[in-house]
Amino acid sequence: MALPVILLNCIGNEHKDYIKQQVQIKNPYLDTMEEDILYHFSLSTKTHNLPEMFGDTKFVCVGGSANRMRAFAQFMHHEMKLTGTPEDIRDICEATDRYCMYKVGPVLSISHGMGVPSISIMMHELIKLLHHAQCRDVVLFRLGTSGGVGLAPGTVVITDKAVDYSFRPRFEQVVLGKVIIRSTELDEGVAKELLQCSNELQNFPTVIGNTMCTHDFYEGQGRLDGALCSFSHEEKLEYLRKAYEAGVRNIEMESTVFASMCRVCGLKGVYL
Amino acid sequence: MALPVILLNCIGNEHKDYIKQQVQIKNPYLDTMEEDILYHFSLSTKTHNLPEMFGDTKFVCVGGSANRMRAFAQFMHHEMKLTGTPEDIRDICEATDRYCMYKVGPVLSISHGMGVPSISIMMHELIKLLHHAQCRDVVLFRLGTSGGVGLAPGTVVITDKAVDYSFRPRFEQVVLGKVIIRSTELDEGVAKELLQCSNELQNFPTVIGNTMCTHDFYEGQGRLDGALCSFSHEEKLEYLRKAYEAGVRNIEMESTVFASMCRVCGLKGVYL
Repeated sequence: MALPVILLNCIGNEHKDYIKQQVQIKNPYLDTMEEDILYHFSLSTKTHNLPEMFGDTKFVCVGGSANRMRAFAQFMHHEMKLTGTPEDIRDICEATDRYCMYKVGPVLSISHGMGVPSISIMMHELIKLLHHAQCRDVVLFRLGTSGGVGLAPGTVVITDKAVDYSFRPRFEQVVLGKVIIRSTELDEGVAKELLQCSNELQNFPTVIGNTMCTHDFYEGQGRLDGALCSFSHEEKLEYLRKAYEAGVRNIEMESTVFASMCRVCGLKGVYL
Repeated sequence: MALPVILLNCIGNEHKDYIKQQVQIKNPYLDTMEEDILYHFSLSTKTHNLPEMFGDTKFVCVGGSANRMRAFAQFMHHEMKLTGTPEDIRDICEATDRYCMYKVGPVLSISHGMGVPSISIMMHELIKLLHHAQCRDVVLFRLGTSGGVGLAPGTVVITDKAVDYSFRPRFEQVVLGKVIIRSTELDEGVAKELLQCSNELQNFPTVIGNTMCTHDFYEGQGRLDGALCSFSHEEKLEYLRKAYEAGVRNIEMESTVFASMCRVCGLKGVYL
């Protein structure tokens, strides 16, 4: 419950100077294409009027689970006192089961599945969607579950930098067989703004820290209960201790590509 | 339609010598645990009688899309002439939205989402499930969509080796911050058996070839219509030509971890 309440407190601030910009597509071919199909959203520039459907979007909130992102959209619908009943909101992507998407007022709520590849597909198509819809001043929030490192359960971690398994703030993207390194530092301004909102609310312990992104849930995160486990309890604790020393405060599976794509495309992103 | 028909033709052969073995868990802690929770299936050794629910499983079929795996289970229900109506099959994982799972006779049909991390979580929990349920002689089939390389659309590719972006038959698994290399060669016996089934049916062009696994759908696979694109049409074709020369016949996003986990755990796996 902490995340939507903190977010809701921020909604009024949508015209802050630091979010006054348009999403930048980094693809010279895109605007020359007759049609752009957003395959995994089941939307297209030919079959849908994207500016009409999405042009007023100011906040995009993404999270792994489809049910949770529906519940979040219903919560926001209720809190923003929109007309209609929250239970009747429609999944805009109902023609596909890859992701789900709900729009309530200026808030878009989208699921992204689990892991870097899954959220990466969603990010490509979301960024194109915001571009085609001519959206301006958009802030992207990731609201997700993660495992805390050295923190009391329930603590909200606002990500400073997303780091890889070696605690480096970088994302390795393979482009036609070549590895490209991209930076994963997130926007400081929005993170601080959010921390301040949280502090004012008082009820939700919140910290700013690094988030470590792994590519699996078991061996990469030191779990002893996977189908494969080749390390001891002590080795696991040693790794988590090193992570903590490197500033890691939580571990999850999507942050590096989220942060790197936000940076490249000039999108203000917050990762919770 | 090709895949279920080919598979159905194989169902009668469930007692082949090459599949006479039990799934091997490679985790010394697992059998000492009081309870094993399969978090992403919403199942547990304490709350569910796994041997009773799953003990007779002989074929596990997995694919990315939840809707498709439900349709596949309904198709198999119909073809195997089971009692009850195909439309009434129940999602065993309905308490979670991470994956869906249907059981029809000896066939288990499970969705795995998109990308290596997503299927990796499913594989860990599936292998533990088969172990707890004391299943024997199980064959695992992946039935999925993929992009063909130099093949007529609709051709079924049975994977020989899963290869990475450099066409190497290997999977890099990070274990507590260290990179471990695992082999990704799939079982030759089951692949040849499946090819023979397909040849007998005649209607479905089928080849055995390498499958390249990428970690994204756009930049890694040479698509010109992502939010980011830094290469030319010619560079894309050059990369695909090199892939073809290295034996790659299709490209998708989950094969390397599927193949490597099948090998490590002694599970006969076929990747379509």
